[in-house]
Amino acid sequence: MLKGHQTWVFPSKPTILATGTVVGPFEGKGPLANDFDLIHGDLWLGQDSYEKAEKKMLEEACEVAVNKSGLQKQDIQFFLGGDLLNQIISSSFAARTMAVPYLGLFGACSTSMEGLALGSLLIDSKSAKYLICGTGSHNTAVEKQFRYPTEYGGQKPPTAQWTVTGAGVALLGPEGDGPRVTSATIGKVVDMGLSDPFNMGGAMAPAAVDTITAHFRDLDLSPREYDLIATGDLGRVGHTIARDLLVQHGMEIPEEIFTDCGLLIYNQDQPVQAGGSGCGCAAVVTYGHILNRMKKGELKKVLIIATGALLSPLSYQQNESIPCIAHAVSLEMNV
Amino acid sequence: MLKGHQTWVFPSKPTILATGTVVGPFEGKGPLANDFDLIHGDLWLGQDSYEKAEKKMLEEACEVAVNKSGLQKQDIQFFLGGDLLNQIISSSFAARTMAVPYLGLFGACSTSMEGLALGSLLIDSKSAKYLICGTGSHNTAVEKQFRYPTEYGGQKPPTAQWTVTGAGVALLGPEGDGPRVTSATIGKVVDMGLSDPFNMGGAMAPAAVDTITAHFRDLDLSPREYDLIATGDLGRVGHTIARDLLVQHGMEIPEEIFTDCGLLIYNQDQPVQAGGSGCGCAAVVTYGHILNRMKKGELKKVLIIATGALLSPLSYQQNESIPCIAHAVSLEMNV
Repeated sequence: MLKGHQTWVFPSKPTILATGTVVGPFEGKGPLANDFDLIHGDLWLGQDSYEKAEKKMLEEACEVAVNKSGLQKQDIQFFLGGDLLNQIISSSFAARTMAVPYLGLFGACSTSMEGLALGSLLIDSKSAKYLICGTGSHNTAVEKQFRYPTEYGGQKPPTAQWTVTGAGVALLGPEGDGPRVTSATIGKVVDMGLSDPFNMGGAMAPAAVDTITAHFRDLDLSPREYDLIATGDLGRVGHTIARDLLVQHGMEIPEEIFTDCGLLIYNQDQPVQAGGSGCGCAAVVTYGHILNRMKKGELKKVLIIATGALLSPLSYQQNESIPCIAHAVSLEMNV
Repeated sequence: MLKGHQTWVFPSKPTILATGTVVGPFEGKGPLANDFDLIHGDLWLGQDSYEKAEKKMLEEACEVAVNKSGLQKQDIQFFLGGDLLNQIISSSFAARTMAVPYLGLFGACSTSMEGLALGSLLIDSKSAKYLICGTGSHNTAVEKQFRYPTEYGGQKPPTAQWTVTGAGVALLGPEGDGPRVTSATIGKVVDMGLSDPFNMGGAMAPAAVDTITAHFRDLDLSPREYDLIATGDLGRVGHTIARDLLVQHGMEIPEEIFTDCGLLIYNQDQPVQAGGSGCGCAAVVTYGHILNRMKKGELKKVLIIATGALLSPLSYQQNESIPCIAHAVSLEMNV
């Protein structure tokens, strides 16, 4: 049900029955290690390409979620997925493995919440009973495609972010135990003319702010009604810009409830420049860490705003700026 | 509302209020020229890259659809789009121009019906009142990305298809004059192990058959209840394979009602090998030609099955086969 201009309210409150989160060795050394289901010691996951390793993470995350839910594989009716690789091959090949009806999505690093929003709509409208939505990214596969192969050893500026190696999925159903999806705000493309692929956080911050303000306007809510408001992967630079822009829009989010998945996933002493990024970032931090905190009773109501930079290397080479987007999903426990 | 395993039925029957179809010079010389809204004489559309020309076609198609509908731009609440270029840049940059909430999709050449299915779900569930869904492809941009730049002048085998230069969009609303969307069948990924990017039709045919049989099984219908059943872009080779496979599945579709958008768009004497392809193919043939025939009263009930090959050049280079998918949407007049 549309409320305001761009927010869907889900009266039936679809439930996240289980999640699956799989990460690489570097993420396993971060502060959220205990929140992930599987931590791989081998960046290749035993595959012969990084792209195949990305696909395998996504397949494993789906398998973990199904096992944790107590459902059978054949109960899953749809898979909604996307990723950063060209033609979203990781998701499509994982969908081949799952062998269920598949909706391919692309929202760059906003894909996790695009999938969760659409998945919740499918459950709420009784277009599905059980489905999985998710996404993943692999550091070396994504860096190679969007910037340079990591083997070059090129230096990066302090505004650059570290693409997360990880896949996170949510298994949704109409009812049961678990956090429930109460609303979703679909973002517009916002482009402030930035064109530096080594400063994605700065480019994406205005899109995050546009969606956050739309969410509160559409639902006539104040930020203080949330226990946590987390953007996807703005990193240190983008997070500061977002906070400043929100103040300019007359919306101050208290510092203690406003964070960013890209700031949570790595330790201060891990050399990740401005923080984590990649569509796996918001996915594993949300479906691993944040949902665990909700289940422990530490958080009752959270808003996740996954941000995406919708560029391709080709659009960048053709002197285009970086169009950005953000989709927000509201999660609540015990409603 | 889910019926059977993978088919959505839309009780409110969302209406296609208007469409916009824009094609290139080669498509303008084909037999459907009179069905298209805009035919460009210049393959570049006055842009400085083929990718920007693809984006411009999509923007123009949206503008045409809004103008024909009698609505205002600000009435459009969502844009659902995708295309074949890496990171679906044409759609994302067109979404930037439209400045409305945007859901990026990727289903390769099945994107048109993926968008129409999801768009209809949004209208049916009252998650939107008016929206646009659509896709486009540009011959030289797509050939360069998936195979070789056309400037190489490489020869192609007879199984190859010609990527359509065209963009087609549908403007959906809850009621009004026009064909109505009554159901949609979401496809599974089907991969029979084919790996030749010059024989997409052959690779995609089993996916089309899987979705067609699912549609009739889920709704307990017979093919004869449709006046026309059109696959997206199987071309001559894929169409023959699909027909044979359907017979093997015990489902004979009468020849006079079974066709393929890739066979309709070009004349016999146009050198397109096995026929048209590209995600613009099913989009412009459906939203131009087939909907015109419905409005003229020649067709009452049609089923469009858009087929997509979910490969990337990289997955092909890594010796993967081609995973394929097909989504079907049923359209009816005067229901």
